[in-house]
Amino acid sequence: MKDWDRLITVEQMEEATASLLENAEKVGADTWQQRSKNQSPHCGFGEAGTCCRICSMGPCRITPKAPRGICGCDVHGIVGRNYLRFTAGGTATHSDHGREIMHTLHQTREGGNYQVKDPEKLIRIAKEWGVETEGKDIYDLAHEMAEIGLMEYGKPFGHQKFTDRAHPHTQELWDKADLRPRAIDREVVQSLHMTHMGCSSEAEALIHQSIRSGLADGWGGSMMGTEFSDVMFGTPKVMDTEANIGVMDKDMVNIIVHGHDPSLSEMIVHYAQDPEMIALAKSVGAKGINIAGVCCTANEVAMRHGIPMAGNFLNQENVVLTGACEAIVVDIQCIFPALGPLSKCFHTKFITTSDIARIPDSEFYRFSAETAGENAKAIVKMAVENFVNRKPELVNIPNQKTKARVGYAVETIKKTLDGVCNTHVDEMGTLKPLADVVKAGVLRGAVAMVGCNNPKVRPDTAHIELMKKMLKNDIIVVVTGCSAQAAAKAGLMDPDAKEFCGEGLKRVCELVGIPPVLHMGSCVDISRMMILASDLAKDWGCNISQLPLCGCAPEWMSEKAVSIGNYVVGTGINTYLGVDPYSKGSSEVTELLQGETGVKQWCEANYTVELDIEKLGDLMIEDIEAKRAALGI
Amino acid sequence: MKDWDRLITVEQMEEATASLLENAEKVGADTWQQRSKNQSPHCGFGEAGTCCRICSMGPCRITPKAPRGICGCDVHGIVGRNYLRFTAGGTATHSDHGREIMHTLHQTREGGNYQVKDPEKLIRIAKEWGVETEGKDIYDLAHEMAEIGLMEYGKPFGHQKFTDRAHPHTQELWDKADLRPRAIDREVVQSLHMTHMGCSSEAEALIHQSIRSGLADGWGGSMMGTEFSDVMFGTPKVMDTEANIGVMDKDMVNIIVHGHDPSLSEMIVHYAQDPEMIALAKSVGAKGINIAGVCCTANEVAMRHGIPMAGNFLNQENVVLTGACEAIVVDIQCIFPALGPLSKCFHTKFITTSDIARIPDSEFYRFSAETAGENAKAIVKMAVENFVNRKPELVNIPNQKTKARVGYAVETIKKTLDGVCNTHVDEMGTLKPLADVVKAGVLRGAVAMVGCNNPKVRPDTAHIELMKKMLKNDIIVVVTGCSAQAAAKAGLMDPDAKEFCGEGLKRVCELVGIPPVLHMGSCVDISRMMILASDLAKDWGCNISQLPLCGCAPEWMSEKAVSIGNYVVGTGINTYLGVDPYSKGSSEVTELLQGETGVKQWCEANYTVELDIEKLGDLMIEDIEAKRAALGI
Repeated sequence: MKDWDRLITVEQMEEATASLLENAEKVGADTWQQRSKNQSPHCGFGEAGTCCRICSMGPCRITPKAPRGICGCDVHGIVGRNYLRFTAGGTATHSDHGREIMHTLHQTREGGNYQVKDPEKLIRIAKEWGVETEGKDIYDLAHEMAEIGLMEYGKPFGHQKFTDRAHPHTQELWDKADLRPRAIDREVVQSLHMTHMGCSSEAEALIHQSIRSGLADGWGGSMMGTEFSDVMFGTPKVMDTEANIGVMDKDMVNIIVHGHDPSLSEMIVHYAQDPEMIALAKSVGAKGINIAGVCCTANEVAMRHGIPMAGNFLNQENVVLTGACEAIVVDIQCIFPALGPLSKCFHTKFITTSDIARIPDSEFYRFSAETAGENAKAIVKMAVENFVNRKPELVNIPNQKTKARVGYAVETIKKTLDGVCNTHVDEMGTLKPLADVVKAGVLRGAVAMVGCNNPKVRPDTAHIELMKKMLKNDIIVVVTGCSAQAAAKAGLMDPDAKEFCGEGLKRVCELVGIPPVLHMGSCVDISRMMILASDLAKDWGCNISQLPLCGCAPEWMSEKAVSIGNYVVGTGINTYLGVDPYSKGSSEVTELLQGETGVKQWCEANYTVELDIEKLGDLMIEDIEAKRAALGI
Repeated sequence: MKDWDRLITVEQMEEATASLLENAEKVGADTWQQRSKNQSPHCGFGEAGTCCRICSMGPCRITPKAPRGICGCDVHGIVGRNYLRFTAGGTATHSDHGREIMHTLHQTREGGNYQVKDPEKLIRIAKEWGVETEGKDIYDLAHEMAEIGLMEYGKPFGHQKFTDRAHPHTQELWDKADLRPRAIDREVVQSLHMTHMGCSSEAEALIHQSIRSGLADGWGGSMMGTEFSDVMFGTPKVMDTEANIGVMDKDMVNIIVHGHDPSLSEMIVHYAQDPEMIALAKSVGAKGINIAGVCCTANEVAMRHGIPMAGNFLNQENVVLTGACEAIVVDIQCIFPALGPLSKCFHTKFITTSDIARIPDSEFYRFSAETAGENAKAIVKMAVENFVNRKPELVNIPNQKTKARVGYAVETIKKTLDGVCNTHVDEMGTLKPLADVVKAGVLRGAVAMVGCNNPKVRPDTAHIELMKKMLKNDIIVVVTGCSAQAAAKAGLMDPDAKEFCGEGLKRVCELVGIPPVLHMGSCVDISRMMILASDLAKDWGCNISQLPLCGCAPEWMSEKAVSIGNYVVGTGINTYLGVDPYSKGSSEVTELLQGETGVKQWCEANYTVELDIEKLGDLMIEDIEAKRAALGI
């Protein structure tokens, strides 16, 4: 038995899952695998985006015999409205996460539950926003910045402050196309208003607002979520951790943190290290307390504390199925309601904590900034005390575990690159060394891989196979979200994974001391990728859309992913999807998203939707090579 | 041929429509009557609310064999999420209308396109909001109030200012149940966030937020829309006008204004009275320019200028089908995309003006506060010049026209009641005389009838039949929106309609000089009804939920209607629906909305859904009589 495997294959992971599904069968639990079967085939109207339920005259469905809804809306209007609403759901969700972070920032205090751990970053952003910092108490500044940040959601006039960070050419494009987002909430509300019965039915207007709404997410709500999480919890630094289901430990109290907002998980992590709690764990017969993460929460705590990552979206039931999960503690987003009845089949406590995510069959502990410490401690205590309720005959932790190096915020990447610079000759703190190796062809380019799992794709296969393909072709991969965990689970974030790379990338990994897949964080941290692309273009001396770079969400499933996709293409980065965004029913919408008009015309990038993953990879490589050719490199 | 009919029946209106549909057939135009047939039967999952398209793993549909979606969400979570999203769409839409009004207020200036026409009301609200008014220029005050009002959409802290107007007991209930709305946009965004994949699936939490979101509309966005429209365009006063399709005039240039935001229609009305435009109309062979309204825009301009009302929601195609419509000028909401292709079958110019409502096959004139005058003049000119393009063989204006007395804002109602007070004995400016006649049993109670048409109900029948039933039973009816136009078209807003009332109501109508159906405005003006109910309860000395009063939307169709319904029940007024809100698939959601728990527990009122209109009427009368009995009157 190896302590860890160099590379865990999808087949091996599936074997582990199969053994866990036996546990499910033993206790009569329902799983997503079964529910997926029950829900197949899906409704063709819904999948094509051609069903409208926006008013109660319907629902209306577009067919050759019924080419318009009762109001007269045609298929392009219906698909376009559905697409914009899908986007708005994602923008609202990401941005509301950012808002919570700002409210938490407003509660920071010296010695409090929440503190300013990266004052330097706070001061840097304050200067960027034109806020006086000299001689100001850091907490006064934090509160002032929180109030300004909160106004980004609701200010009646002006545009998103962080858009001023973007490459000047990108800003020009946005202004020309009237795409620079105003207050975040206003963009969401306008999206709903435009799609209300009897408002917009012109596909172009709907897709235009979809992009603007997405930009309000990426360069607004998500970016605030990222930046001010760093301010409070620390900007990620390179650290080593482990991944895959084997990070759970049968001799320890296992607490799984799952969701998105680090305000919860940071506190749980803190109290799991509390000597009093550890002593309590030992008193109930455990060796200690083991925290592991699922979904974006895993990314947040891995990036800042090296907490291991148990799995991604479609593994959330697996952690309970091990029979060794004392508590799964969640906040918001991507949490299966299935965890309610599933946890009841085991001894697992399913703890919900947010008014945003109230889930039946869970135990609810309202978590607030004011009482975060006591809340977290109570939760950890309950989990520890639950250890004795384990049913040993159900304990099954598959022995799969990898090493992973994580923590590549833009600041970390620049710092890492500084390591290969000559301090006498080179400018420090830039992305020029990266630009140079790409220009030289040692690296051919980069792919940002993001997003979820989706039962429509064999879980993790697309992520892992595409990454391997990119690495072989000397294309470096940056990852966030469930894509990051897929990489980690497979072993692709281990620096030793350089072995799977082409010669050029391998050399870069060795020289710089990085794994070939760089973990940039959670889904809101795709905003980091936007900064990276923008700064790289600035340092390179070209526009973002000229860079040999693309985005890819091969297994996406949530509205957030579409909002993200919209801001990634809106920032000038071609984006490749492996799942169709309920839009294939309209040729006009498809053209606006994937063709030469629409977003391509406004922002110099567009979408490619390709369900054949092999082809999707080929198209990305072609794209990167075409960009290189156009740059003459 | 009578100049107008005392009461026009639904059958007579249907005959008129039938003759217009012959016109449609002649030109090969599509109509909603045909599209409704094409779209029947509707999808049963959609109608029950049991289909989920919130993430791209689906769509999922709940059946006995598939009782949960792929994520594990059960039918209550799915129906609840759909209900909350439906509400959010309505709240966003109404409130964004209010936001536009506030932005227009911000542009008012002495002698400008937009001015403060009711400075007294502005000052009254300013005092209510604690804004200094003494010695302040009225436009400075308007701009200050606009900025404060705009912050109601986005302020990070605090609750909606106008909720402080509510009856103290109502405020207590809201605070106890955590239902007092915060910033309007935040409530919308949180609604989307809660319904995002993997957030809330507990029906109670979802319905709770639906009510709070609705309250953000009724006591927030809609109320601002109403109040500041009054400030800019004048608080409605009693005036006489006409209604039904016969208000169009074959010898005049007919311009139809349609939509919701008076910022557009006020300007069109103004320029249609411009001597230069009238001269132009005469020069092209018309007798003049005739403006008539459709939908809520009709209510806005009827209430303030006595502009006739051509029809309601399901009449919007009829005005084009007359062949005598030179232009149909629209802004936002409830505009059939069908008007695009339909107008192309006639000479009619279909003019869209708002970025919120971009519609194919229309001519787009972007309308903004800064250029409103020139925009409006250009539109009127184009309409006038289009008169020569009429095809005489297609002109068919059914000869149906009624008289209607309109303009019953709360201020107007109080002033009207003052007329029957003894200035030496009674307090002026209250609703006490109304309370007194209800206490005395001369009036049994009141019904607020609101909302749309919906092909699922024989158009206008439910509105008109229910009103007649209420009037016969001495129940006074207050109306807004398409319900108001249904009443007006039938002749029920004619003071002579007292003949259809019971003896008590007839006596009140005669004494006070009112019609038995009081026109309170457009759909945002349902906020006026909330003030009316709240003030009546204060003057009566009881709680709102004790008043013999209910709300009714028998033919509703839009998301706005559900948002409205939520704030009406949220304000303590039982509400009766004649169309199911896509929620029947969940017993839990049905219980929370219609049962004794949920909104009834929080706010002392709930919904009744009854598709049999006769029964719906009986239930309302029973409700009113039960309230009377409980009050011991």
